[in-house]
This record gives sequence, structure tokens and C-alpha cells, in this order.
Amino acid sequence: MTTNRFEHPLNEKTRIYLRIESLLRQLQQSSAFSDNSQYLLFFKSLFDLLEIFEQIQLKSELAKDLEKQRLMYRAWLNVEGVDQETLNTILDSLDDVHKDLMNADRFGQALKEDKFLSAIRQRFGLPGGSCCFDLPSLHYWLHLPLEKRNHDAQKWLVSLKPLMNALQLWLKLTRETGRFKPQIARAGFLQSDAEEANILRLTIPMEYGVYPMISGHKNRFAIKFISFESGQAYPKDVEFELAVCS
Amino acid sequence: MTTNRFEHPLNEKTRIYLRIESLLRQLQQSSAFSDNSQYLLFFKSLFDLLEIFEQIQLKSELAKDLEKQRLMYRAWLNVEGVDQETLNTILDSLDDVHKDLMNADRFGQALKEDKFLSAIRQRFGLPGGSCCFDLPSLHYWLHLPLEKRNHDAQKWLVSLKPLMNALQLWLKLTRETGRFKPQIARAGFLQSDAEEANILRLTIPMEYGVYPMISGHKNRFAIKFISFESGQAYPKDVEFELAVCS
Repeated sequence: MTTNRFEHPLNEKTRIYLRIESLLRQLQQSSAFSDNSQYLLFFKSLFDLLEIFEQIQLKSELAKDLEKQRLMYRAWLNVEGVDQETLNTILDSLDDVHKDLMNADRFGQALKEDKFLSAIRQRFGLPGGSCCFDLPSLHYWLHLPLEKRNHDAQKWLVSLKPLMNALQLWLKLTRETGRFKPQIARAGFLQSDAEEANILRLTIPMEYGVYPMISGHKNRFAIKFISFESGQAYPKDVEFELAVCS
Repeated sequence: MTTNRFEHPLNEKTRIYLRIESLLRQLQQSSAFSDNSQYLLFFKSLFDLLEIFEQIQLKSELAKDLEKQRLMYRAWLNVEGVDQETLNTILDSLDDVHKDLMNADRFGQALKEDKFLSAIRQRFGLPGGSCCFDLPSLHYWLHLPLEKRNHDAQKWLVSLKPLMNALQLWLKLTRETGRFKPQIARAGFLQSDAEEANILRLTIPMEYGVYPMISGHKNRFAIKFISFESGQAYPKDVEFELAVCS
């Protein structure tokens, strides 16, 4: 049975974390430059990230969130029945990424100071603005050997490593707090309470032909299923799986 | 010897034509959805095109330009020494694309009326805005079988065919008017006169490590070579090839 895996953030900060995770994934995948259009995706993801970095104090937000997770896991130390080895591995990882995060420069600083990147950033956003005459230096760079371009990409990505590791760990631990349980949305609708939740995760069978519209916040949420074909609310029951992650 | 092929438009309209050509090429290439990130490029190119269509009266501009070419080629009819068979083939092609162009709806009209496309267009431009929670209907669509997605892509692209054919023919005939000739930019600089030129085409050996900065208009232009490494004007002679196309 084909299913549609779906995630929804229950607060603005987690929304941004998930967007950044998606951009970092696109950056990684496109940095191989394995076909002649991947560079477009690479630079678009990179400049999107820079835009987000300019909007929020990402580093301090993420440090606070890791600290919260650390306190939560520390409370399980020496509690009977809790696997202390696994717990210590998690705590060590949290310590490591937190330390690297605090030692890192402001996110995107090195990228903003890169002459080549800042020269192409502005015009890159124009509709169709990646033509050679709009960005002659980018066009030259595209003619350099693949090895050199991969090397440059790695140089740009290395400054994002502390962010990448911290964000991935926070999201991994957050996702692991939720367990998928069967649910039925009666007449395509379900609402429920949550407790300080950050992310809802859904597994929806494709056979219904629906996608979810979700609203809510950390303590309460509503899921309404929409028929893809009609764009209208789906009128029948939908059986799906839901994990609430906090 | 590795070379860098470069094109520069000498007027605003040709600049837009070249951007559109580049977007149409990206659309075609990404419409196979052969890896799981090509859809990003596909929709970005499509929405960039729609933005350009909203800014200029592309159809009438292009029709006028085809008409000019038609008049120019007609003047060669029955002129001794001109290959009449080739000439008639060109004139027939011009007639065909001109007719299809005039019969076509306003460019992008069908795409703007597509419910799915207009639902995703607005959020798609947000930094990192292509996440499932930002665009749940797109996320559903991505889970459809490849065959269905390719079919949709072809459905969207078909309305762009008259534009594509007309633009490609105009650019092909324009490019064919120019012949590459060896040039020397003394101390990295060359200026010259042109006659109602539309596009400059350059072939630059990569060994100089330079890219061109070009300014000018249809009757006069200047080319200044910039060193990629230093970002400064290149101080030595550059031997390259130049075609002036009108």
C-alpha cells in the first residue's frame, strides 16, 4: 500500500527548523553537480538559507532547544529500568553538538563574506536571472572542472556543519518522542489535544486521494482532509496513522 | 582547448527572449522528473515564466520580430546566387510559427487558470517554502506515479509550444546572421560599432581565467575582460572569437 508521509510543525520555530532541514538536504544532494542543472538548486537553496539566517537568531534558539532536551534526558539518569548506556550516548551527542554550535560563527557569516557568492546572490533571484549575461562570473565558474566546483561547494558547506549536526540531532530526538498510532478522521476531520508538541507526523494511504490541512498549536490541533481532485473537504472517514512528537 | 561560450543581448527585449529560452530549456530538462529534486526546478522555471509573461506583451513583440525577419528573407526571393530552396524552407517555417503564434491564447493563460498550479505558486517562492506543510497538495502530487506526473507536465508544457517554436526559430535565424571572427582585446578591452545588432556571441579560451563584462546597445558595444580570481580588470591582451548577430 502506497502511503504519503507528512509532517506538520505546531509552532513557528519548528516550521523554520523543518524548512532549514529541507534546504540543507537539497544543498547536500545538489552539491555533487551530477547534472548540468543541479547548480541552480544548489545556489537557490544556499541563498534561501542566507535569507532565513538574516530573519531569525537561529543559533541561540537552537542552543536553547538543545539545552531543554539535555535537561529532559538528564532527568532519566540513574532511573531504574532506563537503559543508561543509550541515555549516555544521547547525552554525549547533545554535549558535542551544543559545544560545536556555541563555538561556531554566526550562521552564514562566512558565506556572506564570500565575494563570488555575494556577487551572484542578488541577480540570482530574478526570473530567469541565471543566464550568462546576468551572471558572467557564475557562467565562468560553471565551466571550471567538476573537481574544482565540488571543492568550492564543500568549502561553502563546511561552515554549515555545526548547524546541520545540531538541527539533525534535535529533530531526530524530537521525532523519536512520537509513536505512530492508528486514527480515524470521522467525515475527514479529527481534532485532539497535545502536550507541548512540536511536530505531528502522519502516514496517509494514497488510496483516499487526500492531503491534510492542519491547524493548531502545541496544545491543540485539527486535521482536515482535502480531496486532491476536487480541492474540497473529503466527506468520508479516513484511517491513517499519527505520531505526536514533543 | 576548453572555451567558454558566452552570449550577450544588446537590447532589453532580446535579454528577455534569452531568459525565456533558458527557462524553457530548464523546463524541458526537468520535466522528466528523473530525480527527486527536479520538480523544484520545474516549478521554479514555470513560475518564473509566468512572472515574465505578466510583465511584457510577449506575443505581440515576438510576432513583430518574426514579421521583420520574414520581410528580410522575402527580399532575397528570386535574387540570383541565393539558394531559393533553403530560403523557401525558412519562409515556410516563419509562416508556420507566426500562424501558430497568432492563434495561441495569451501566454500563460492556461497555466494561470490551472487550480493546482495557482494554489502552489504563491508559497513556492518563500525561502524553503516547498516543504510538505507549506504545500500539502504539491506533496501529495509528488507521491503520484511518475507516469501521471509526466503527463501533467506535458499538459502544462503544451500551451507553451507556440511560444517555444516561435522563439527558437527567431533566435536560430538571429544567431545564424553572425559569423565567429578572431579578435584581440588589447589590455583586456575592446569596443566596436555594430549595425542594429541583437546578440553578441563570444568564444573565450578558459586559459585566460577571465569572463566578459559587456555594455552597449544595438549600434555600439564595449567588452571588458575581468579576471575571475581577482575580480579586477584583466590587464593583458585576450584573443577570442566574436560573432555579431542582428
